[in-house]
This record gives sequence, structure tokens and C-alpha cells, in this order.
Amino acid sequence: MNLTLLTDFYELSMMQGLFLHDENPQVVFDMFFRRQPFNGGFALFAGLQTALAQIESLHFSDDDLSYLDGLGIFRRDFLDYLKGFRFNGDIWSMDEGTLAFPGEPLVRVHASLMEAQLIESALLAIVNFQTLIATKTARIGLAAGGGGIVEFGLRRAQGVDGALSASRAAFIGGAIATSNTLAGKLYGIPVRGTMAHSWIMAFGSEREAFEKYAEAYPDATVLLIDTYDTLGSGIENAIAVGQKLRDAGHAAFGVRLDSGDLEYLSKKVRARLDQAGLGGARIMASNELDESIIQQLVAHNAPIDIWGVGTSLVTGAGDPALSGVYKMAARQSGSAWVPTIKVSNNPDKVTNPGIKQVWRFANGDNNLLADLICLAEEEPRPGVAYTFHHPTGDYRSFHLSDYHAITPLLRQQMKAGRTITPWPPLATIQMRARDELARLDDTFKRLINPHLYKVSLSDRLFELKARLIRENLSRGAQQ
Amino acid sequence: MNLTLLTDFYELSMMQGLFLHDENPQVVFDMFFRRQPFNGGFALFAGLQTALAQIESLHFSDDDLSYLDGLGIFRRDFLDYLKGFRFNGDIWSMDEGTLAFPGEPLVRVHASLMEAQLIESALLAIVNFQTLIATKTARIGLAAGGGGIVEFGLRRAQGVDGALSASRAAFIGGAIATSNTLAGKLYGIPVRGTMAHSWIMAFGSEREAFEKYAEAYPDATVLLIDTYDTLGSGIENAIAVGQKLRDAGHAAFGVRLDSGDLEYLSKKVRARLDQAGLGGARIMASNELDESIIQQLVAHNAPIDIWGVGTSLVTGAGDPALSGVYKMAARQSGSAWVPTIKVSNNPDKVTNPGIKQVWRFANGDNNLLADLICLAEEEPRPGVAYTFHHPTGDYRSFHLSDYHAITPLLRQQMKAGRTITPWPPLATIQMRARDELARLDDTFKRLINPHLYKVSLSDRLFELKARLIRENLSRGAQQ
Repeated sequence: MNLTLLTDFYELSMMQGLFLHDENPQVVFDMFFRRQPFNGGFALFAGLQTALAQIESLHFSDDDLSYLDGLGIFRRDFLDYLKGFRFNGDIWSMDEGTLAFPGEPLVRVHASLMEAQLIESALLAIVNFQTLIATKTARIGLAAGGGGIVEFGLRRAQGVDGALSASRAAFIGGAIATSNTLAGKLYGIPVRGTMAHSWIMAFGSEREAFEKYAEAYPDATVLLIDTYDTLGSGIENAIAVGQKLRDAGHAAFGVRLDSGDLEYLSKKVRARLDQAGLGGARIMASNELDESIIQQLVAHNAPIDIWGVGTSLVTGAGDPALSGVYKMAARQSGSAWVPTIKVSNNPDKVTNPGIKQVWRFANGDNNLLADLICLAEEEPRPGVAYTFHHPTGDYRSFHLSDYHAITPLLRQQMKAGRTITPWPPLATIQMRARDELARLDDTFKRLINPHLYKVSLSDRLFELKARLIRENLSRGAQQ
Repeated sequence: MNLTLLTDFYELSMMQGLFLHDENPQVVFDMFFRRQPFNGGFALFAGLQTALAQIESLHFSDDDLSYLDGLGIFRRDFLDYLKGFRFNGDIWSMDEGTLAFPGEPLVRVHASLMEAQLIESALLAIVNFQTLIATKTARIGLAAGGGGIVEFGLRRAQGVDGALSASRAAFIGGAIATSNTLAGKLYGIPVRGTMAHSWIMAFGSEREAFEKYAEAYPDATVLLIDTYDTLGSGIENAIAVGQKLRDAGHAAFGVRLDSGDLEYLSKKVRARLDQAGLGGARIMASNELDESIIQQLVAHNAPIDIWGVGTSLVTGAGDPALSGVYKMAARQSGSAWVPTIKVSNNPDKVTNPGIKQVWRFANGDNNLLADLICLAEEEPRPGVAYTFHHPTGDYRSFHLSDYHAITPLLRQQMKAGRTITPWPPLATIQMRARDELARLDDTFKRLINPHLYKVSLSDRLFELKARLIRENLSRGAQQ
């Protein structure tokens, strides 16, 4: 489906307004978010590849144009202009799987104002959601310690793509597999599944249902043991089947718990499996799990090996959306770039002006120290001490000289409307995310009340922001 | 895109298991949910048309089959079987826009077990989400009293279809328009938009930006007045432009508030507009609104005419998913239908067995009294007194004789895999939803702590359920 019209209508009406007034300067927009989702300490940037593919393919079909024409508010000459419209801008961005923090530009768009506006809604929708879900999955993974996370969310996801792109983002965030077969096909994610209660109910008895399944999948048998009575019949019937499989040389056997008290049941079930000589059998748990429930079960030593997580993971339960926004940072006037700012009565909502780069400072172990937002023309040099100004522009600041390496986070991903970076496979992005998380001190990874990672402004950006705030507060009144 | 693989992987592995064992009886599955979303008193059923279109087009492409083949667990004969697979079942369902309550079958699927399983994930994903959003929108509409709701959620939606199908469901639930242009095109929903802060920032001053917009859209000018200083400059610049428009004979003028204290600002802005002779100018408000915030503003008489609601509406904030499930209710054995039940230690989770119909009882004003779930072969007759048994099967019951009309809610929508009902236009579904809500007493429509609408079991269903619970508790142990 052509998704060019997946845009807020005002983008189109503003575009026509700019067209009529022949006002279409080159601009720079930043996408960034203002607070971490889930009250957490980090986010994992995701969704770029999906968004760029969408931006690259933008074009108005005849069908789109005749729909717009039928609305009765667009002029013929503007519709003719849209017919040839393509996105020809440049895009700089973090790589997917990079740790991201509030206030940092994640994506920087250089384009004409009309182009930059048209892509706003889709860019935000895609990156906001995938970043949210990659982050949520990473949190669930932290809660599970070493246990594997399987994403089971399709049936409770928010629409078809709420499922598909959630599966993609969940894999980036560390899920080992998905239940969503189409996501497996589209993104190359391992697919995984066990059995439904309906399988058990389709046969004359639980034991027969288990045996029939083991016969079909002797090397991939995970039996759902809570259909009738987990400890009364389920585990015993499963053990009988598991022993037969073991005796026939099939090692990959497990059981799944989908209801009841998971700590109590998993401990009882583990004990019975071990007694029955099935010490290698794995226990999978599911049923409305989220990171807080998992963290508590792990703290209580529930012997669960694999966690199937659905609703909470794919919907980002607790925070239905990342609060990503897209704001103009600079505008060309003649041959000069003029930094722009959006002021507000709330200091947290004042934007950072100008064309910017984010520099990440690391110590000798390559662990993260702090991030510094600079103007793009600044080139921080290793070995120099830098002043880190608090982003709201108040008096707080600190100096950093004891660091080992600095890295710019935004790199050019699209040039004149064409993607210029080869896309890494999803597994590579997943590894990057895992490596990034490993570089972050545990204090920032606490699920509740984490340590605040510092994102600061350079001297020059700080001064520019202060000056523009003063100048812009009077612009509304200019008449 | 072919969405046939949009299914949980276990459906496919179970299908192969059934295929191998030559075990594919005709079955009946019910889709239902167990609790109202948002702790509310009602839900609006939505998503049927989307789901049936998807089910009707199910087929495995060569591409799908070669993907499945590559997974290395499917046999050639099963893949050959899938090649010719189509959904040939019958589907009974409520009409979209119908009020729905916990425990009632919303959709009843009659098909072979393999067919019934394959459609489970997509049916649940689509109906769960659209029902959630139609319900959320109705709640927001109730909070707003007479004020119009415009759905503004695209940029914070959960993926592309999280936006598109949310727009569809929001319209069913009573939204008057969407900002999502593609949803407008696909579903015929009115599209609406104002302007972004970037429009204001693109011009030399706020006043110039307003004038340029009014010049382009003299009959659809809604000015965003909070870019610099709402009361200091925004409203005054807007009034100057609004007066010019009025003097030139253009009546449709308004302003939009997108930040700050909406009660305080809307009252101040209303007063200034009225003083300036712009009594007809409308005030639109947006900024992280939900039903509780809107209800409070309305209670405080904030003079807001139109509410733009985004994130909270399209994500169902507060409840990220409807808890809809899909359970086997009957299975053919020889020529007889055998009712099936899923028991549980939790009485709320025990399913209602057998092929069922839902009858809605209404009084002489056509207002809702209570719903009775019956076996499909029962045909309740008006004028007879019925016993309503509590659905968990305990001792609670009541008799109802003082009613005027009874209506069955499930009707056949698909026969042998083809939709047999003409699809009503979305505006007709929206009207149905509005009429349904009007039939529901206000006590059930309280946003917090509503009166509980009664959904009960008929004598015969109650007795069947009690018998099957006794019989099935022993089935797990049969070895």
C-alpha cells in the first residue's frame, strides 16, 4: 500500500499554503523526545530502517491525488506540483540499537520546509513506536536476568502493524523469538510456539493430546500443562511423555505454565521434573507478564527458563507512546542558516536551536560517562576539558576532562532522498543494542527510579540558546 | 500485503499436528472478552469488517510456503495441503457498533478445527484493538458532552495500522474527523487539521504567519495561538486576522490552544473573542487530553468547542488492549455436536459451553434491561418470564417478566467462507453506535465506577455448564 497519505492533514494544507506564498526555504528539523518511557533510565533507538524505506518511496499516486482533489480545498496547480513530489532531503540519524536520552536529536532532517513537513507524521509514528517497544523489551530482558524472552503479542497488539513492527522492535530490544509468523518471514526473526488449550481439548484426554503432539514434534515438544489441573494431572501426564521422549533420545523437552501462581507452580514443577529424571526439561511461563512481575519472580528464585510476554511487551504497557516530537532547528535565509527556537513558558519545552551533533563521552572501559549536544560545526577533540551545561539553560554545569573517547552519534543515512548506508541485518542491530546496554552502568538500568544519565549543552549551544530565548520572546508581539 | 501468515506460529504447528493425525473435526469457537476496558460499563464492538475481509482473502502464497518450508519443520504433504487452503467456515457476529458486555460471544466461528485455529490471531488482534478504540472514543465523547472530538493520533499511534484502524474505530465511536489523511481516503472519514508551530516559525512574525494562513484558507482558518505567548500576543494577533476575515464575509474562524492551563486560557480567550465581536469564533483545545481531563474541564465550564485528542485516544491509554479471547465451545463427534468447556480454578475463567446466541431484553422505550446468553437452539419468546443465572454458575439469579422486546445479537455474516451481509458505510455504523449508547441508562455510562449491566445464562445453559464442569474436572486425570 502506498503510504504517502499517512500524514496529518495539516501538513498538506500547510504545504499548499507555502506553495501559494512561494515560501519553501531549506530547513533542519530534529526529532527528539523529552522524557524516558516507563520512568526508566534509557531508551533504545529503533525504527529508522522502516521510516527511511517509507520516506524513500514517497510519491502521490493518481488515486491519492484524485482523493485530495475531491476534498475541494486543493488547487489544480498544487496538485500538479504534488504529482512530481519526491523527498529529496538529507537525513542524519543515530544507528538503530543506540542508547538514546531525552533532548538528544535522534534524527536530523535537512530538506525544504514542504518536504520536511510531509514526512513528520510517519517518521514520528514509526520511530516513536519502535523505540518504545525496543526499550520495553530491554527492560523486560533486564528483569529476566539470563532468561530468554519470547514475544507473544500478536493477538493483543494495536492493529496489524502494531504487531509486526512491535515484533521487529522487540527483537532489537533482545527478544529471542516471536510468535508472529509474518514478522518471522518479513524480518527474519526466529519464530516460536507451543500449543493452545484447544489442542488439548481436541483430543479425548490430556495424556492423549500430549502424546499426539510429541509424536508430531519429538524434538520440539513444549507441553501446556494447565488445561485441567497443573499439579494434579498436567505435570504427571507431561512427565510420562517426557520420559518416553528422553528414552527415545529426544532431548529438547519442556513444559509451559500459563495460569496460576507462577512461583509456586514453577518450583513444584521443577522438583517433579528433576525427581523424574528430566533435569534438562525447561520451564516456560506466560500469562500477563511484565517487567515488574518477572523481576519479582526472579528475585524469588522461580525456576523459569523462558518467558513468553505478550500484551505488555507489544503495547508498551505503562506508557502507550514515546513522546517524540519533531521541531524546526534552523532555516535558510539567503545563503545563511538561521537557528530557530520554539520558546515556551515551560523551560523543559524550549527547543535547542541550530544544526547539532551529539557526542558521547566514554571512559577507558568504553563505558558511558555523559553526552554533550554541540553545534554541528564544533568538533570536540579528545583530551580537552569540556563544560557540560544543563539543558534547561539554568546555572547548573560541570566540567569533564577525565574521559577516554568521544563519538558522534548522528551520521548521514540519506542523501538527496536516497539511503546511503547499507542496512545491517536485524541480528546485528540486536547485538549493537546488547553491547550498548552493556556499556551503561547498572545504576542507569534500574527499572524503578534509575540514576539520571547526563545530557548537556556545549558552551556554544548554551550561549546560542540563551540569546535566542531573549530575542524570540518578543517575536510574537512584532506586528 | 498478503496477511495469511499474520498468525501465531503455534497455530501452524498445531495444524500440521492435526493433519498428521488426520484429526480435523468441525468446531465452534467463541470470541469474547472477560472485563470491560477502562473499568467502564460498556464496550462498542468494532473491527468486524476488517477482520472478515482478512479472513475472506486468506491463502498461502508461494512465497509464504517457501518461507515455511525453509523453517525445516513442515512436511511436504502438509505444505501442499496449505497451498489449496481457504477458510470455508461460517461466521456469526454482532453488528459493528453494537454495545457489548463481558462474557458474551461477539463472534462465533463454525469451521474445521484447522480453519478455526488459523484465523484466531488475526481475528483477535483486529477486533480487540478496534473495539478498544471505539469504546475509548465513546468515553471521550461522553466526557465532552456536546463538544466534537477530532482524532489527532497518528504520530503517537502504535505503528501504521495502529493509526489507520484506530482512525476507523474512533469514527465508529463518535469522532467527527481524523487528522490522518490516509484513513480519510481509505475509510471515507472527514479529515481535519489546523497548523503546526513550524508554520508560525517559518514566517517573520506571528501576525504575518496568521495573515498568510488566512489568505490561503479564508473559510477554514483555525489559528494556533500558543507559539510565543497565548494571551500576550497570540490571541491579539488572531483577533486582528479574525476581524478582517469577518469583515470580508468569512464566518468559519477559530483558534486553537495546545499548551498551558486550558480552563484558564479558554475562558480568557473566549472573553477576548466576544469583546472583539468574534462571538462565533470557535475554540479548539488539544495537548495530552483524555476523558478524565476533558470531563473536568467541561465540569468547570471551560468554553471549548472542539477537542483534538491524540495519544490517549488511539492507544486506548489506561488499557492498552481489550482482553478478548477465542475459545472452543463445541466440537462435532460423528454427527453430533458435543459442547466443550475450558475449566479453571478461577470461576471467571471457566468458559460457557455449547453453540450460543445472545438475547438483549429491552423495555417499552427500547432501553436496555439485561442480556441473556442462551443455547442457539433455544428461541426465547416475548411475554415469557425468564430466569437469569449469574454467569459464574453460583446461586445468584433473578427473574425478568416485565420487558417489552427481545433481540438476538449474533447474526450470520459469513457463509462457507464468503461474506453474505452487505457492508454498511462507516457513517451508518457510527449512527448505530450512537443510537445504542442512547439506549443505555446513564448509570452504565459513568466513566468511573459505573453500574454493572447484567449478562446472565439461561436455565439450559446454566445446567449444561454445571454438568460439564463436574465431568471435565476429571478429564485431565484420565490416562
